Amino acid sequence: MTQDSFMKLDSLWRNAHVATMANGRYSVIENAAIGVVGGCIAWIGEAHDLPAYEAQAEHDLGGGWVTPGLIDCHTHLVFGGNRAGEFEQRLNGVSYQEIAKQGGGIASSVKATRDASEVKLIASASRRLKSLIADGVTTVEIKSGYGLSLDAELKMLSVATELGKQFPVTVKRTCLAAHAMPPEYDDKDAYIDYLCDTVLPKVAELGVADAVDAFCEGIAFSTEQVARYFKTAESLGLPVKIHAEQLSSLGGTSMASSFKALSADHIEFIEESDVKAMAESGTVAVLLPGAFFTLKETQRPPIALLRQYGVPMAIATDANPGTSPALSLRLMMNMACTLFALTPEESLAGATIHAAKALGMADTHGSLEVGKAADFVCWDVESPGELSYWLGGNLVKNRIYEGKSS
Amino acid sequence: MTQDSFMKLDSLWRNAHVATMANGRYSVIENAAIGVVGGCIAWIGEAHDLPAYEAQAEHDLGGGWVTPGLIDCHTHLVFGGNRAGEFEQRLNGVSYQEIAKQGGGIASSVKATRDASEVKLIASASRRLKSLIADGVTTVEIKSGYGLSLDAELKMLSVATELGKQFPVTVKRTCLAAHAMPPEYDDKDAYIDYLCDTVLPKVAELGVADAVDAFCEGIAFSTEQVARYFKTAESLGLPVKIHAEQLSSLGGTSMASSFKALSADHIEFIEESDVKAMAESGTVAVLLPGAFFTLKETQRPPIALLRQYGVPMAIATDANPGTSPALSLRLMMNMACTLFALTPEESLAGATIHAAKALGMADTHGSLEVGKAADFVCWDVESPGELSYWLGGNLVKNRIYEGKSS
Ligand SMILES: [Zn+2]
Ligand SMILES: [Zn+2]
Repeated sequence: MTQDSFMKLDSLWRNAHVATMANGRYSVIENAAIGVVGGCIAWIGEAHDLPAYEAQAEHDLGGGWVTPGLIDCHTHLVFGGNRAGEFEQRLNGVSYQEIAKQGGGIASSVKATRDASEVKLIASASRRLKSLIADGVTTVEIKSGYGLSLDAELKMLSVATELGKQFPVTVKRTCLAAHAMPPEYDDKDAYIDYLCDTVLPKVAELGVADAVDAFCEGIAFSTEQVARYFKTAESLGLPVKIHAEQLSSLGGTSMASSFKALSADHIEFIEESDVKAMAESGTVAVLLPGAFFTLKETQRPPIALLRQYGVPMAIATDANPGTSPALSLRLMMNMACTLFALTPEESLAGATIHAAKALGMADTHGSLEVGKAADFVCWDVESPGELSYWLGGNLVKNRIYEGKSS
Repeated sequence: MTQDSFMKLDSLWRNAHVATMANGRYSVIENAAIGVVGGCIAWIGEAHDLPAYEAQAEHDLGGGWVTPGLIDCHTHLVFGGNRAGEFEQRLNGVSYQEIAKQGGGIASSVKATRDASEVKLIASASRRLKSLIADGVTTVEIKSGYGLSLDAELKMLSVATELGKQFPVTVKRTCLAAHAMPPEYDDKDAYIDYLCDTVLPKVAELGVADAVDAFCEGIAFSTEQVARYFKTAESLGLPVKIHAEQLSSLGGTSMASSFKALSADHIEFIEESDVKAMAESGTVAVLLPGAFFTLKETQRPPIALLRQYGVPMAIATDANPGTSPALSLRLMMNMACTLFALTPEESLAGATIHAAKALGMADTHGSLEVGKAADFVCWDVESPGELSYWLGGNLVKNRIYEGKSS
């Protein structure tokens, strides 16, 4: 044993099997050990191959399976109020029209979010974030989009930033100012002008968002309007993502691919040409089975085509008060299997390495490899497939964020 | 204030709103207080109506909503192994036939359960039971049915009994010996003879089951066979329940109603005559949306008819390794709303008072009324409808079992 192979570690974790998710596959290491230095993985492999080392702390994981910490790459976790009342009204026979007349739907979330203080938004989002964390999430994307004015959008992004400081979780912030029309505007182009002239430049200047997102749909913004907004984002150096082809096919996904979008999300209605465009631009397909389930959709995303063209598929909660009040990413993995026929391995890749790619952070997160963040979860399961198999329940034994149990 | 109205309490719980679920409705008490004596509710009402009292302990629930502890009235929580491997194989394209040829399906659970020691079965079921408990369950029914021999069925029932001793939860044990055919039999009538002559009499003699259940379906036992088995149960003084009309209409539900069955479960394929029979016999309809979801069924139970005839609807996890690996009753409440269009109030009644009735314990459990068990949960929500609204997540603030925080 030479001096070179002697490792000085902050911590060593052993006694579990690992699904590293390298290359999007389980890529199993049995009876593994993980050495951590400075919050990153310094060594990973079979325990019997460990070189000589000295560790400040050594932890026995007590069996089970380790995977990368889960990454929820599409959430609207910050919002005022909730829409349980509407959910209940609808099931009691009140029509969507009637609810809209009462000021319901997204308008009610916008009003409640604008009315809420930053402290109140942090408090309500914290409750939801705790559920995600308890379920194994170590990175979460949080979108704005219920503010729809410069101040209210900045407030939401500031809440997201603050959540990342208060909890052991990496928060990625996305500016979704083009989510819906604010009540004070009646012309969509005029609102897009405002976003391009005022909101996006300020967001970029302050550095409070990691990406920019838009909702491209008949009920939201047109492909042309979103393209104009993306052009501004691009000129400001902000990467883009899109909500597209959820309810109809407008060409948003292909347009977004032309901007090398990090991801196109929902995409139930994409066609082969869109899939080709995504493959060429390296755009991730983010599948959102919670919204599909809650809205009782019937058109499934074209999984076979996505596989055929090698487009990485991520899975996320879409946590939001209207169409996906989902607080468990592992439940979404089950739903991706049951509703979209993904394999459990694809589901896990979708909640780890491909989700990291959808956030532009696949170089540092999403799989357990030397040099990457030491974010991982030890699960009380006998195979990684169990993570997609169980409906609900708490399977987390130990959650390690940046090398520390949390 | 007279001496009569002076209460001596073990504990007093205050500062929450209560959905008592009396009469199957929310039956709300705002700003409530609950007084407990000997594990039962001695007083409940608005806090400002409290008579003079002396309490050994006083607890501030800190806001939120209190409901009766959830009751999971249909589970197969005890089993050896799990079938995540099959789940994964199927999603990787292996056919049901191929899996059956490998000894998969229910046969694999029977083998694993027979092979497992009581200690091992307790350990594996404990993990699942902890998830249910963390989700707000205070009473759980557990069925046998993977033993299919006298010894193995008694072993399963003994494990269920032991779980009730080890955890702060009331366990109701159901003998489901007529679940499937054991490998050593090839004649269904001969197996039913064995159950009637040997298994049920011993189960009754030992007092290890609170009810008897059967699976009435083409792939399991005929209506006539189940009737014979129920006749024996009836003669032994054991109440009955049935798995019926899940995949086809065989008349099992009406037959079970003629035995005054506590419940008929699944019942996607019942017709109006079955519903009438249930209404007359006081049989509860137990809805199992987790199995419906997992099996991608399309025929929904006839909710409108059940409402019309006033048949109480309960909701349960059906927690089992093959068709419903569900570990959250609250998730089933969401699915009952989303998949079966129950209202959140019906869902909550289904997981409390109607579930109690399905277990023959509605006199003592399932609603928060004087004289009933002090089993309740304080939830971190602003309305009871939120319990059905959120998909996953942990909403439990405080779980009180027999008057004690646990
Ligand atoms: Zn979204
Ligand atoms: Zn069952």
